[in-house]
Order: sequence, then C-alpha cells, then structure tokens
Amino acid sequence: MGRERIKTFAAEIDPQPIHLDEEAARDTIFRGLAASGLHTAARAMRLVVESEFKPAGGFVGAGVDQLRWPLPVRPGDELRVESEVLKVRPSKSRSMQGLVKLRATTLNQNGEAVLVFAANLIALRRDS
Amino acid sequence: MGRERIKTFAAEIDPQPIHLDEEAARDTIFRGLAASGLHTAARAMRLVVESEFKPAGGFVGAGVDQLRWPLPVRPGDELRVESEVLKVRPSKSRSMQGLVKLRATTLNQNGEAVLVFAANLIALRRDS
Repeated sequence: MGRERIKTFAAEIDPQPIHLDEEAARDTIFRGLAASGLHTAARAMRLVVESEFKPAGGFVGAGVDQLRWPLPVRPGDELRVESEVLKVRPSKSRSMQGLVKLRATTLNQNGEAVLVFAANLIALRRDS
Repeated sequence: MGRERIKTFAAEIDPQPIHLDEEAARDTIFRGLAASGLHTAARAMRLVVESEFKPAGGFVGAGVDQLRWPLPVRPGDELRVESEVLKVRPSKSRSMQGLVKLRATTLNQNGEAVLVFAANLIALRRDS
C-alpha cells in the first residue's frame, strides 16, 4: 500500500489521525501510520474479484462473518489474498441461486495475516 | 449515493458489472444498478466517525461480526446510521485500553436497513 494512498483513502472514507498523519499516529496503539481497515478490506475485495474465483453467473455478498484485523498494514506493505471455498450449496428458496461460503486471508509480504474474513456469497447457478 | 460515484467507487474497489453498468445489472438478482457493499460500508464508516460517538482517545476496529446487507443501495438513496453501544469494558491485558462493542444500522431514506454490523472496537481509556 502506498503511503499517499493510505492517506487519501482515509481522508475520504475513514478520516482518523491514525490513518492520516504520521506524527499523530506515533502516540497511538499502532505506533505509526496504518491503513484504515476498510482500505485493507477494499484491497482484499479487489484481489478476490480479480482472482480465479469466478462463479459462472457472478456473485454478490450477502454477509461477512468474523472479520478480523490481526495486524496493522503499513506504508509499503505488499498484500496478497489466499481464499478457500468452505461450502457450496443450492439455495433452498431460489432455484437459480447457490450459496458459497468463502474464507479469505490477506497476507503481507512477510506472510503475516493482516485481514481474515469468511464471506457468505450468493452465486447464480449455471443452467443444468 | 450518487450514480456516478457508485460507478467510480466500484471501478476502483469492486469492479463487477452489477455495480458498474445499468444494462448488465438489469439481468442480475438486483434487477438494476446497486452500490458495492463495500461502498455502503465505507459510507457507514464515515458517518460513524463523524457522529457523536467519540471515545476520548479515539478508536480502532479489532473486528466486525455479523455484517449483513439486507437490501441493495440504489442511486439516489440517502443513507444515515443509527448506532448503539452494546458493551464497554476495560481490557484485561492492557490497562490503558477498553473494548467497545457497537451495533450500527445503516438505513435508507425509507427507513429500511441496508447494512447492519456489530463492531468490536479498541478505545484508549481516559486517564483516571
């Protein structure tokens, strides 16, 4: 994540000193500038959308469980996402839809998890 | 949410046709353009940060439970957030920190919930 993008994202979305100003961030529990958790989530979302995870009819998020930020993301960190499909089942009420449970772990360049979540997705079923 | 901002946010963060293109969105389960769920979450975050919820030492998110998008957000929707502090307790391991559980419901102009989540926040305790 670029230092300037961390700040411009925060200025628009999550304007707290910890994401905006090195000096102000130094005396916080993060001990330095850290990306907004939403910024990390946005990056993770983009990586998932651009990954090989491509249900035939696309997908939309129905909900997210257990979103955790175990470590802050610092300027210069390089992020990647590992995702795992935990469950796939047809929707009981809507025959053209399926439900997919996906766990995604976002890692920094040291292989440390910076964001973990399990997403419940609605995917369109392929015609059969 | 403005129609153009829905598209530019999606183009950067969540580039799926359902958030980018009215024609493509028409044949999806949303039956028309809808904002990315992350866009709604970003807007909700901004509203919470600018609200009267201001722990003395600021706060950072440790995690989110039970994030749900019950209804899509459409171009022109006006959003507001109602938040409720469910629990406040001192951290067991770090004397200067407290844990706050906050439930936030984001509503559209018709009073319908479009996003619900419970956030676990770390706040700095006031000196006592």
